[in-house]
Amino acid sequence: MPAIPSAPRSARTRSWWGWGYTDAHPDDAECAALGALLPGTLARPLPVPRIEDLPIARPAVTAPPSLAHLVTADPRARAAHAMGKAYRDVIRALRARPGRIPDLVAHPTDDREVADLLDWAGEHGVAVIPFGGGSSVVGGVEYRGDAHRAVLSLDLTSMDRVLEVDTAGRSARIQAGALGPVLEERLRPHGLTLRHFPQSFEFSTLGGWLATRAGGHYATGRTHIDDFVQSLRVITPAAAGTSWRLPASGAGPSPDRLFLGSEGALGVITEAWMRLQERPRHKASASVAFTDFHRALDAVRAIAQSDLAPANCRLLDPGEALLSGASHDGSSVLVLGFESATSPVDDRLASAVDLARAHGGRAKTPPADRDAPADSAVSAWRSAFLRMPYLRDGLARMGAVVETFETAATWDRIPALIDAVRTEVGAAALKLTGHQATINCRLTHVYPDGAAPYFTVAVAGRPGDEVEVWDDIKAVAGEILHRHRATITHHHAVGRDHRPGYDLQRPEPFALALRAAKNALDPHRILNPGVLLD
Amino acid sequence: MPAIPSAPRSARTRSWWGWGYTDAHPDDAECAALGALLPGTLARPLPVPRIEDLPIARPAVTAPPSLAHLVTADPRARAAHAMGKAYRDVIRALRARPGRIPDLVAHPTDDREVADLLDWAGEHGVAVIPFGGGSSVVGGVEYRGDAHRAVLSLDLTSMDRVLEVDTAGRSARIQAGALGPVLEERLRPHGLTLRHFPQSFEFSTLGGWLATRAGGHYATGRTHIDDFVQSLRVITPAAAGTSWRLPASGAGPSPDRLFLGSEGALGVITEAWMRLQERPRHKASASVAFTDFHRALDAVRAIAQSDLAPANCRLLDPGEALLSGASHDGSSVLVLGFESATSPVDDRLASAVDLARAHGGRAKTPPADRDAPADSAVSAWRSAFLRMPYLRDGLARMGAVVETFETAATWDRIPALIDAVRTEVGAAALKLTGHQATINCRLTHVYPDGAAPYFTVAVAGRPGDEVEVWDDIKAVAGEILHRHRATITHHHAVGRDHRPGYDLQRPEPFALALRAAKNALDPHRILNPGVLLD
Repeated sequence: MPAIPSAPRSARTRSWWGWGYTDAHPDDAECAALGALLPGTLARPLPVPRIEDLPIARPAVTAPPSLAHLVTADPRARAAHAMGKAYRDVIRALRARPGRIPDLVAHPTDDREVADLLDWAGEHGVAVIPFGGGSSVVGGVEYRGDAHRAVLSLDLTSMDRVLEVDTAGRSARIQAGALGPVLEERLRPHGLTLRHFPQSFEFSTLGGWLATRAGGHYATGRTHIDDFVQSLRVITPAAAGTSWRLPASGAGPSPDRLFLGSEGALGVITEAWMRLQERPRHKASASVAFTDFHRALDAVRAIAQSDLAPANCRLLDPGEALLSGASHDGSSVLVLGFESATSPVDDRLASAVDLARAHGGRAKTPPADRDAPADSAVSAWRSAFLRMPYLRDGLARMGAVVETFETAATWDRIPALIDAVRTEVGAAALKLTGHQATINCRLTHVYPDGAAPYFTVAVAGRPGDEVEVWDDIKAVAGEILHRHRATITHHHAVGRDHRPGYDLQRPEPFALALRAAKNALDPHRILNPGVLLD
Repeated sequence: MPAIPSAPRSARTRSWWGWGYTDAHPDDAECAALGALLPGTLARPLPVPRIEDLPIARPAVTAPPSLAHLVTADPRARAAHAMGKAYRDVIRALRARPGRIPDLVAHPTDDREVADLLDWAGEHGVAVIPFGGGSSVVGGVEYRGDAHRAVLSLDLTSMDRVLEVDTAGRSARIQAGALGPVLEERLRPHGLTLRHFPQSFEFSTLGGWLATRAGGHYATGRTHIDDFVQSLRVITPAAAGTSWRLPASGAGPSPDRLFLGSEGALGVITEAWMRLQERPRHKASASVAFTDFHRALDAVRAIAQSDLAPANCRLLDPGEALLSGASHDGSSVLVLGFESATSPVDDRLASAVDLARAHGGRAKTPPADRDAPADSAVSAWRSAFLRMPYLRDGLARMGAVVETFETAATWDRIPALIDAVRTEVGAAALKLTGHQATINCRLTHVYPDGAAPYFTVAVAGRPGDEVEVWDDIKAVAGEILHRHRATITHHHAVGRDHRPGYDLQRPEPFALALRAAKNALDPHRILNPGVLLD
């Protein structure tokens, strides 16, 4: 299990097979209640999976004495590092059909140990899967195939320190294995925050965010972690190096941008200087309801094209709004949030609400009322957001197929894209399962030139065939994204699951360059084989 | 000469050897007056160079019949494509010691012709130097050495159309050869603007900006052209391809970011979808004087770390302020500008001025006075900014060594860096020339975590040895930047002149990847040999 160093957290147990902490998992009765919402699901929940039931073979290799203290073959550790936390992974655990279980799990504590492990793996043909919080939902931390003699999961969470803080320059050097809460706790005494709060915040690491170009807190402007990187340290089988710590540079192509999004296929990111924010002192939020989803899209575009720069600007379609408790009358809801460390944000919120009103929105909380309790739609959405993956696992135990996928496209393509997903994914799900699927959509991030729609699909599965049903639905979704020239992923990464779409999307000159870089940096081809390229 | 399609401009003649239009060049009397400001310069100006005096050999190759209509061997065209527009280039023209003059100049009009020219060049071992406006100040568009049989300058300025405009999504597909004024004129009817206004705006192209990661209009936030790229089309000897037009993506490392800053060494950028702005309707500017430059630095940092996001935020040291007419009393001047298409900016300007005052600044124009004529220090600085390169050439004709260099570093390094440049470059110039150099500094771009200082050096040269004097001064400057971990270039690019610093700065994993990408994309190694790598 990933080490979680801070005292209150270490008292809780991370699930090896499902999302988050075991004490937050829905119990059997809650699972049954969830299942009752989705016609056609099982009568009673699948049992919580047991490690004893997994096909865990004896490790095919043993680490040399010099590295033995970093490495474990403990079955629980191996099972917990076999897959990420996609629906696909959860149902495979529930059905005792996990991905290939790694032979060994290593917990290096410094760069030298990372390099030594890579050297050993290269010499012995052992695949190395860099592993942070293990929250990949795209098959990013598992091994597929049998081209390697053995598989080592390289767990970075023992490298979780904040090494330096530059308060005046608002930045810090942080080790890649720090989980979200760990790094935020260590920055708090300095009055600083990274403000990167993906849904996986508690269960993902800085290194994972960097390697996957994670999307974070800000719904407009600098939405991806990429823009907050000052410098990266990368260890590859061929060389190690650190980019200079710079506020900006024009010296050749950005060295960091090649490793951001490289998903462990080019090297292991061990630390980064990150740009931080002062903790916000001013916050304001509101929600706006729309009868017409397409007018809501226009409102969001107008806000994204203004100077207002909301930190939160998430549009929920009627189903999404209902599910999260943000609305119960079939309206779409726009959740707006502003924050600042330096100046009041009420005027900006009021201007954004005015723009929304001009496009037919009805403000649910008067933005001028600063003493009002937090807007209830806003807080409902926030708690639903964090609870959602736990509910997904509860539904999975009821034999449901429940998963999300996300994308981004320019504004001209957004309405037809969302319509096509609703229609065609719905038809595919019906054909595959005989049941009507629930398909919800929200915009998680918005830009002057486009938006990032995020879809949730829920439908009763075919008992025992849930993985196949989901894979078939996902193939339809991927085809729709490709046809609409919408990216195969806005912030979930490529991993192995998105390879077909990624291979079609990636321009050929970059494909040639990436393959050449892979060969140069990873000559024995041990690093996370199968993500990004073969 | 690059074609300049719009009618009013085509009436003017571009200088083949110096900055900009010949009719804007200082005449002999103005040159002499400029020289009188700098002790030790020549008594009379060097004559304007003549093409007849250049060592222009017969071309070593001729284009095949199928490409002959795209290619010229005209001596004036060849001379105008032999070098960029650095001081180093101007003085080499004045001393009739130009860089190697290309054998041929091609003006392709579409992607097919670019690809055909690359194919032919690859087969015949001809080096290809992509050429936009030719305003490189880092040796980016010349050939050095003799490893190739011949040299072709690939002038893209015949590909200068705006191909598509998406008004609702505020973006346009623009050919790479469009000069700044050309593309802005073509966007104006749509109410849109790229707002990329480097000092070279009139004489540089979109493709050049992209290939060099140019810094533009915005002094804070999105300072580089990189952030405005939606999609790139790139033609390499090995493959051609276009990235999808997306508002954002997390699908693998950014394909565009590898070609942004690739300086023609990996491929030829032929078009891009660019993110545009609505034309600003609200503008406000002011200037603030500081007695203490170090307190001014603190003021600028506070503004950069606020939410205020000025479009202009340029700090001039006393010498720079004097030179541009922004101040005459030895004070430093902060030039502030705000703009918006959607909302008034007076409050933001007032807040920025308040922050500056809190750090000892004295506002030179009360920001509340909206009807006042434009702040005179602001407009003085603006016109001096555009006139500066012409004056540099006038001083060059007087035998002066006059050049700029620029960098960026984190705030903790800025004061010592600026002091070191003043002291050590001053000492080196004195030793090399026997004259006291003028060394001025401004911050051109500022960030929450650092700033981009821009230095101007002027000193009387050693007649006939001006190039050597400058190269020696620049070597000292490069060593200072390296010692202070300041980037070798913030927005001028690497070219050939910055190779020593770039090679030291580039992290080894990226160096390996870049070399591998170069080999894969440019197997005959014909593309801009010597920039970025050997």
